[in-house]
Amino acid sequence: MAITKRKIINDPVYGFITINHPLIFSIIEHPFFQRLRRIQQMAMAQLVYPGAVHTRLLHALGAYHLMCMAVNELRDKGVVISAEEEIAVKSAILLHDIGHGPYSHALEHVLIPHTSHEEISLQLMQQMNNDLNGQLNLTIQIFTNNYHKPFLHQLISGQLDVDRMDYLSRDSFFSGVSEGVIGYDRILKMLTVQNNCLMVEEKGIYSIEKFLVARRQMYWQVYLHKTVVSAEKMMVKILERVRELFQYTDESIKTVPPLDFFLGEYTGLMDDQALAHFCALDDADIISGIKKWSYHPDPVLSLLCKRFLDRKLYKSRIQAEPFEEEFVQQKLTQAIQQFGIQPKEAHYLCFTGMATNTTYQRKDESINILYKDGTVKDIAEVDNTLIQQNLSAQIKKFYICLLT
Amino acid sequence: MAITKRKIINDPVYGFITINHPLIFSIIEHPFFQRLRRIQQMAMAQLVYPGAVHTRLLHALGAYHLMCMAVNELRDKGVVISAEEEIAVKSAILLHDIGHGPYSHALEHVLIPHTSHEEISLQLMQQMNNDLNGQLNLTIQIFTNNYHKPFLHQLISGQLDVDRMDYLSRDSFFSGVSEGVIGYDRILKMLTVQNNCLMVEEKGIYSIEKFLVARRQMYWQVYLHKTVVSAEKMMVKILERVRELFQYTDESIKTVPPLDFFLGEYTGLMDDQALAHFCALDDADIISGIKKWSYHPDPVLSLLCKRFLDRKLYKSRIQAEPFEEEFVQQKLTQAIQQFGIQPKEAHYLCFTGMATNTTYQRKDESINILYKDGTVKDIAEVDNTLIQQNLSAQIKKFYICLLT
Amino acid sequence: MAITKRKIINDPVYGFITINHPLIFSIIEHPFFQRLRRIQQMAMAQLVYPGAVHTRLLHALGAYHLMCMAVNELRDKGVVISAEEEIAVKSAILLHDIGHGPYSHALEHVLIPHTSHEEISLQLMQQMNNDLNGQLNLTIQIFTNNYHKPFLHQLISGQLDVDRMDYLSRDSFFSGVSEGVIGYDRILKMLTVQNNCLMVEEKGIYSIEKFLVARRQMYWQVYLHKTVVSAEKMMVKILERVRELFQYTDESIKTVPPLDFFLGEYTGLMDDQALAHFCALDDADIISGIKKWSYHPDPVLSLLCKRFLDRKLYKSRIQAEPFEEEFVQQKLTQAIQQFGIQPKEAHYLCFTGMATNTTYQRKDESINILYKDGTVKDIAEVDNTLIQQNLSAQIKKFYICLLT
Amino acid sequence: MAITKRKIINDPVYGFITINHPLIFSIIEHPFFQRLRRIQQMAMAQLVYPGAVHTRLLHALGAYHLMCMAVNELRDKGVVISAEEEIAVKSAILLHDIGHGPYSHALEHVLIPHTSHEEISLQLMQQMNNDLNGQLNLTIQIFTNNYHKPFLHQLISGQLDVDRMDYLSRDSFFSGVSEGVIGYDRILKMLTVQNNCLMVEEKGIYSIEKFLVARRQMYWQVYLHKTVVSAEKMMVKILERVRELFQYTDESIKTVPPLDFFLGEYTGLMDDQALAHFCALDDADIISGIKKWSYHPDPVLSLLCKRFLDRKLYKSRIQAEPFEEEFVQQKLTQAIQQFGIQPKEAHYLCFTGMATNTTYQRKDESINILYKDGTVKDIAEVDNTLIQQNLSAQIKKFYICLLT
Repeated sequence: MAITKRKIINDPVYGFITINHPLIFSIIEHPFFQRLRRIQQMAMAQLVYPGAVHTRLLHALGAYHLMCMAVNELRDKGVVISAEEEIAVKSAILLHDIGHGPYSHALEHVLIPHTSHEEISLQLMQQMNNDLNGQLNLTIQIFTNNYHKPFLHQLISGQLDVDRMDYLSRDSFFSGVSEGVIGYDRILKMLTVQNNCLMVEEKGIYSIEKFLVARRQMYWQVYLHKTVVSAEKMMVKILERVRELFQYTDESIKTVPPLDFFLGEYTGLMDDQALAHFCALDDADIISGIKKWSYHPDPVLSLLCKRFLDRKLYKSRIQAEPFEEEFVQQKLTQAIQQFGIQPKEAHYLCFTGMATNTTYQRKDESINILYKDGTVKDIAEVDNTLIQQNLSAQIKKFYICLLT
Repeated sequence: MAITKRKIINDPVYGFITINHPLIFSIIEHPFFQRLRRIQQMAMAQLVYPGAVHTRLLHALGAYHLMCMAVNELRDKGVVISAEEEIAVKSAILLHDIGHGPYSHALEHVLIPHTSHEEISLQLMQQMNNDLNGQLNLTIQIFTNNYHKPFLHQLISGQLDVDRMDYLSRDSFFSGVSEGVIGYDRILKMLTVQNNCLMVEEKGIYSIEKFLVARRQMYWQVYLHKTVVSAEKMMVKILERVRELFQYTDESIKTVPPLDFFLGEYTGLMDDQALAHFCALDDADIISGIKKWSYHPDPVLSLLCKRFLDRKLYKSRIQAEPFEEEFVQQKLTQAIQQFGIQPKEAHYLCFTGMATNTTYQRKDESINILYKDGTVKDIAEVDNTLIQQNLSAQIKKFYICLLT
Repeated sequence: MAITKRKIINDPVYGFITINHPLIFSIIEHPFFQRLRRIQQMAMAQLVYPGAVHTRLLHALGAYHLMCMAVNELRDKGVVISAEEEIAVKSAILLHDIGHGPYSHALEHVLIPHTSHEEISLQLMQQMNNDLNGQLNLTIQIFTNNYHKPFLHQLISGQLDVDRMDYLSRDSFFSGVSEGVIGYDRILKMLTVQNNCLMVEEKGIYSIEKFLVARRQMYWQVYLHKTVVSAEKMMVKILERVRELFQYTDESIKTVPPLDFFLGEYTGLMDDQALAHFCALDDADIISGIKKWSYHPDPVLSLLCKRFLDRKLYKSRIQAEPFEEEFVQQKLTQAIQQFGIQPKEAHYLCFTGMATNTTYQRKDESINILYKDGTVKDIAEVDNTLIQQNLSAQIKKFYICLLT
Repeated sequence: MAITKRKIINDPVYGFITINHPLIFSIIEHPFFQRLRRIQQMAMAQLVYPGAVHTRLLHALGAYHLMCMAVNELRDKGVVISAEEEIAVKSAILLHDIGHGPYSHALEHVLIPHTSHEEISLQLMQQMNNDLNGQLNLTIQIFTNNYHKPFLHQLISGQLDVDRMDYLSRDSFFSGVSEGVIGYDRILKMLTVQNNCLMVEEKGIYSIEKFLVARRQMYWQVYLHKTVVSAEKMMVKILERVRELFQYTDESIKTVPPLDFFLGEYTGLMDDQALAHFCALDDADIISGIKKWSYHPDPVLSLLCKRFLDRKLYKSRIQAEPFEEEFVQQKLTQAIQQFGIQPKEAHYLCFTGMATNTTYQRKDESINILYKDGTVKDIAEVDNTLIQQNLSAQIKKFYICLLT
């Protein structure tokens, strides 16, 4: 009897996740991966949905689990996936978010400007690939869509990838928002491959509808919830203020070297030194920074930090039309007077913005339905689906945030 | 139509939690309560159960929800609970863990020696009571069991309190360990009151059995899981080493004032200054500290911190008998040689200990079963229950932890 | 301490249902209500979804449970509902389906033509009201919408009534079709009353969307699933054949008096005798009848019955356009030849039909959204909802069923 | 790409069940298997737990699903199971209950005396094997434990078989009794094979404990619930009375041939004719019979039948000691007077009995724990488990049933 090292991990969403290959163990045990344990998946959503504190590490494991299921289903239908491809695509999904910094999307362009998390993910994968003597070669090919079976890449990144399936399932689970629950198991059973491209069987149409509607609801009800936006913008404004104060080389603004680096020095060149700093960053640095800055002499900075810690956030409003310039000016003036700050700092206390969401975009990548007779249709062209006008249109909402 | 401020909070465990009283709002918005958002309920259990990252704030809200249910059920059975008592007992359960420090039980006696979290809870409640002009008077009476209806205190702290019901339900939910699931809703429906004491109706016996068995299983499978113990002991050893290094007044060991205070100065007197420091502490301080100390020149400290961050924990073993002295000595010698440390520091790398658990203790407080004919029996005396010999006995397990 | 008779019933969907009023006990213990135990809620859906075997009795209890929740929520918001109104509206929901016959909707107009189940429900309520000395007077007023608080009637029968909320929740639960899950608890928390009419709070819009989308999906995926339709039509055809054979007063077609009555004699007059027969009917009569008729000398009848019992159903196809006359003729001819039957009987073996569904109909009763500023909008007029074109349009699908 | 016929079935308990082999399709489509659709798994438990109306067909499919999981897990650990063995063991579990008659255990020895359901299962398998040209040869070998890999039989019938895992999971799910929930997925992951015998890995001990405790609770709380027992005994008494009346060859007692056969003629010889009658029987025959007999001139029979239909059951009491003879006599006398029946018929209205349950029996088949060092221990010998005295002892409870 061949004995393989084998581990099962409890997951509240799927029950059990099985790890049964040495490369998967190596990835999970790597410090790059363990760092994800200290980064929350949903950033500030926990200020509205207090259960939503799960980590990016668990999301990565969950997406890996769905990939295991997807590979099994596709093989059961006769799709050829070699043992090497299997491990590569599983490794790729484990690593797809490895380049996320603290509080993920909420801080992405503020903390590390000019470099996307996908670029950093790729750099980190390459570095791990060196550590692992090239075992990630195929993983990187698939991740960068340079492999001759595009469906493997589509499983990682596409309209119906296991990344989305996991984050919708997981975020709705932990936040307790049942509106976001999708039938991931049914969708997986409906996937198929034609000409090396991912398709959905005809009878899976309603599950796809459900998936797109759930995704839309999670955006408006959770990810773009006005209080969540308000909290994330407050964190953003804090970091912007810190970055501004760094220009006066005030020592008191410093916290720890990696954070000092990205807030004071980083110019957009992700070289080895920058990458090393990146790998040392996690959510705790931001929270500790905010706690320290809440005692900083700059009144704007300490005000924002104290408010953040005590969850006394900006009041926010959301509407379908942009806010009138006059109305905004009035609110700015009010903030200046109330808090005794200078007009040039008023934008820290009052500002407007726009949130957008498109449920289904045909341009980039479409969801293709494979009919029994072999024809293929984009889901937006199927009769009587919900996906037509409404779900394909981009929806814009305008918000104003105001400290009171 | 009377309009009351009313808020519902999504909770993945119970669905929705309703807040509908001004005092409850005041408590939840208080910085003392918001601090619990930054303290994880299950400390290092997340290193084994990656979903178990929920916060003490959510536990407090959950226990409050169960208390709302308990009050409704008891009233529906004719138990008299006044409006004032209702708010007081709900406030008390919200505040019952307010005195927990970073990583709760894992660090309790290490970070803040000589003072229990219950004592701090009471001090913080008294301080909040001042802020709230005495609105918490009855709350404190009930919390300290100085009220003439003991069942209200028993609902907060007893063999069958809503605290335990929530943490078992919640911890099993987030860890994904189905063995810990209890029928909290059925237990609540079986509660009753006789002579102002909490009782369980006869037909609730099997639910109580299930509750005690689930609790036992959570202890051995989760709370005292050998890897969880290993991780928590590593954190403990790190703080002990820091405290030791503080004796040499080495500035480089310092991190932030509240942590420096408790690791370098605190003598056990929880005065106003100490309490202010306490209120500024949360999990992020510990993690940030460990990250900083991982670069500290002390080899023992930096070794433990690096290992902790990368989840390269002590190897541990657990057994029913104490470990032989000779065996332990041999392991200590091995550690000294492998890591080139001094013998007096070996206890940081290798040590033994004992974990105990008693599922049901009759001495302190018992679970009383009320029969239809009015007689009352301790559950351990009921025929054919599981609670007799096995669940009443204290079980000891011995562990050894070793860095390799 | 006042002791009230009190009973809790386990329900897999909601956990526990509490019965705590003598009138509710009387209704539940009445033979009219107990009869619902022998009538399945989803008729032939179990031939596709084998878990969907729950009874109408459980649906009635579930809807009653949601009514209890609705009353509590509305009162908590200041809506005045008297104790008498509370019991009346709870009684009404328990009794709303009391007039359903065997296999409910599937056989409704076939087994008991000319009389709707609502009419029978009302007759049975009146009869029970006599037995109960007028205790159901207010119940009947509310049920027939003759009470001055229309919102009580709307909770029983309207676009957002607890009947629909229960059947969607319950049918998706038992069938295992997660696409039909709705957030019933959130919807209930979003209900409110203005001018005695039921409204939904603004922030409940997404839950309503979810509800309507789920309903739509249950229709197409479950209730109108082509194999479910095929099975129900087979049962209908069997009864039609039996009714036809009754015209020849063939004794061998008879089974039990109540079924014989409705298949052989009933002319549409629901007098006391007819009602007594009705109350003696349940699913078992139909199944036993089919088992008996499977040995009947009429070849069409015995064929259909055997096929039904062995689940060798009509093959069916569904499409957006009506089937071509020529195509249908060809299939009819094929059936005649294959089974050696007479042309006039061919319609038992091959036939076409149309299934329709409108997710949201504004005409009858609308779902009104109450905004914070007091304005009211029909949900179909709210910006960016899914409910506009798509969900308001009636969708028609055409099917053909064919025995092969 | 090889195209296999493949079907997924929604199951509320496990999500989806996949059928992907021609023999499995043949079995499921066979009339013997479809008959199980008309037999409820939990007999009269639905009179207490109204959700518990699921069928034996669904249980068989569920057990099949667990078998699929078990085969995958064991193979993943290196246990060799050939493709032929896989299909055979899956077929065997699908067919393991094929010999159950109406209302399964409740009527087993009353309706078809002298022949166990296992014997009938085997006869029906042999008949199906003829229909299927010997494709079930290996299935039958495994079912009868005549195959050289006993672990395959143990998966079907043993202390830890998938039959028990499914019925505990399913019965607790449908009844809504959370006390019976087991961690079937964890148990399956803990199974292993040594020397061709089924074992459990050391770290699965707590899951086994949970399983045995859950089983014990289901017995006392559900299967042997006093009202469930009361309802089942009422059905038994009805059939006993019918059998008695058959001795007087009263035509009016007859219903349908198969039921007449087993109540009037069957002598214990399960020949072809008897088997054909058996295959025509299901729950509907019993219910229809009871409905007919409720009008029968025999006062005892019609009384019991009317009471049964209206759920006006025997009152029952349960206690740890046998009931005093004198007390029983008094109740009998009371029944004779109240209902004006003859003394020899009193046992239909009042009787006593005993219910027993042993949670864990070592004698027949034990649960073996495989330690990492290769040693094997019976779970009852493991330190500190719950299984020792309490769960191994047979518990007896005594009941009395009385019509009032």
